This record gives sequence, C-alpha cells and structure tokens, in this order.
Amino acid sequence: MQLLKDRIRKDGVVKAGNVLKVDRFLNHQMDTDLFYEIGLEFKRRFADAEINKILTIEASGIGIACIVAQQFHVPVVFAKKTKTKNIAGEVYTSKVESFTHGRVYDIIVSREFLGKGDKVLLIDDFLANGKALEGLADLVEASGAELVGAGVVIEKGFQVGGDAIRAKGIRLESLAIVESMNEETGEITFRDDEA
Amino acid sequence: MQLLKDRIRKDGVVKAGNVLKVDRFLNHQMDTDLFYEIGLEFKRRFADAEINKILTIEASGIGIACIVAQQFHVPVVFAKKTKTKNIAGEVYTSKVESFTHGRVYDIIVSREFLGKGDKVLLIDDFLANGKALEGLADLVEASGAELVGAGVVIEKGFQVGGDAIRAKGIRLESLAIVESMNEETGEITFRDDEA
Repeated sequence: MQLLKDRIRKDGVVKAGNVLKVDRFLNHQMDTDLFYEIGLEFKRRFADAEINKILTIEASGIGIACIVAQQFHVPVVFAKKTKTKNIAGEVYTSKVESFTHGRVYDIIVSREFLGKGDKVLLIDDFLANGKALEGLADLVEASGAELVGAGVVIEKGFQVGGDAIRAKGIRLESLAIVESMNEETGEITFRDDEA
Repeated sequence: MQLLKDRIRKDGVVKAGNVLKVDRFLNHQMDTDLFYEIGLEFKRRFADAEINKILTIEASGIGIACIVAQQFHVPVVFAKKTKTKNIAGEVYTSKVESFTHGRVYDIIVSREFLGKGDKVLLIDDFLANGKALEGLADLVEASGAELVGAGVVIEKGFQVGGDAIRAKGIRLESLAIVESMNEETGEITFRDDEA
C-alpha cells in the first residue's frame, strides 16, 4: 500500500534494536483518515472472504480494527491483556510473549463473543515475532470458530512472525512489509519495492 | 440519543454493586455501525466547536474515539496506562483512580502529541466517578492545550463524575445518562426520559 509506505518513510523513526516507532500516526497518535484508507485496502484484499467478526488485541489494535470493521459491517471483539486469574468457564485464554516488553501475559476473550459459526478476521497494527497473532489464533481455535485470515498494517519482514504465521497456513495480508531498516541513516526498505 | 438508550435497554446487563455491563456492544464486543451513529451525534453536538485533536484513554475508549474522529477529520491521541516510571521530560503524566479495579495508575501522553495551540475534545465510553476524564483534563492543562469539551457515551448519573466534571466548567455531552438501575428487575431509567 503505497500511501502507507510513504507515510512510514515520512513519519516513522528507526531506533536502535530494530525498533520502528510509528507513534505519530499509528499507535499513540492515530491518523483516522489514513485508517479509513487502510480499511478500504483490507476490504479489497479480503473481498472474497466471508467474515462476520473481527478479533484484535488491546490497546493499539483497537482503533485500526474498528475502522476496518466499518467496511465489513461486522462487530469487533478485542482480547484483553490481564494479570488476573482466569475466570473459569467464562473466557477463552491464551498466552502471549511480548517482544517490546519482554514478558509473558495472558489474553482473554469472553466465550459469549466468539464461538462455532463465527468466521473471524484478525487485525493488528504490527507483526514482529508473531506472538500476538498466534495468541489470537489460539483463541479462535479454542472457541470452535473459523479463522479466515489475518491483516496487519506493518510487518517487520526481517523478524520471524510473518513466516511463522504463513507456515501455519494462515492467510496473512500485510499492507507494508519492512525488509530492512538502517538505524544510522534512518533508511527503510520495503519488500517488493521497485527501487 | 434514543438509538443508544434502546440498545442499552436491550443488551445492557445490570449487575450487583451498580455495575452496568455493556460489553455486548460497547467495551469488549464493539458494534461499529452503532459507533458510526455515535460519531454523527457527537459531531452534531460539537458542531460549533473548533477541535483539532481528540484525546482518549486506553483501552475501551480507543474504538469510539477513532470513529468519532472520522467525523471531525482530526487525529486521536490515546493516553497510556503505565506502571513504568515516568520518562522525564518526554511525557505528560497524571494519576487516575479506577472505580472498577480499585487501584491508582499513572496515565501518560507523549509531549510530541499534545501542546499549546491544540483544541482538544475528550472522548470516553463511560463516565462514573469521573477520575479518567479528570486525569485526561489534567494532561491537557499540563500541555498548555485548550480543553474544548468532553463527550461520553454512557454517564452513570447517580455517581459523582458528571457533576464533578460540570462543576469544573467543562462542557460535557453524555449521549445516555443512566439515572437509576434495578439489579433485581434489570430495569434502567434514563435522565430526561419522557416515561
């Protein structure tokens, strides 16, 4: 998605340790006009798919997911990060290891909002090591719902997450795949770039 | 907002301890078609106001804020809840006491995304004791930005938050104000109801 790549080049900041800061438009300050275009693009890419629910994870996935959901006219469910003990029987639960924060947390979703018959699209802002998407996929599987695919805004193509998700046979659409970043020059190279 | 009140009556669940569960459409599963109507209503109520930024708080405020922001064509900034120590100089910070979780947490927003010249509308899903909105208002004040007003989807009119916010001279628009709830019968009465 060229509009998105241009924006990442303009407003993304490359930091030490393979960190790409995009908090000017994606995950702290959020440009909802850009999100609208992102919603159109996911709708185009999943036009053939039957979807009745979008699943994301708090916090920064929620904004994107809601605006994408407007294109599909389906509800969004967001998995909650929690440190409280599982409420037995009321929720599906999975574990996610955070790349950014270096710790493991539980994610939960109420059984009321995910189950057999649901056709689920996962949406998230970032794909790095893939643990968040894998956790969401686990929730879908545990619920008996069908996982239709996953859409992420930015995939860090030099980390393992994208390959891991594709290797599981999950249909993955990434709107921008960062192939490499140079923390000295700030240069960002995208996969499939012509130049 | 009648559509919203009808939906609260239909899908809201009154629980012991003055808890109103609306996680079927507002803050766990999210009905984005309803959110669109909510966006239109906030745009109508703040039509006279000059706004260049919407500020909300993670997690459940983000979805509403993003869809409301589309009506104003302004970015959303969400305050993050954190337990990490303040990064001196880089963020504005305030404290919020949670009614639901019974603890105090810090909220932060990057100085890059809020400052003098900004005209800010606060958006949140719920108003109960008002602590979250007060914390957001503190961040706006600390940044030197102008607080234009606050919009909440559901105000619990029998708790102190709404009065506290209004007493501070903040322009508050609540789309549904719950006057009372009956946990035995599940009945919900709204302020300004004709019946």
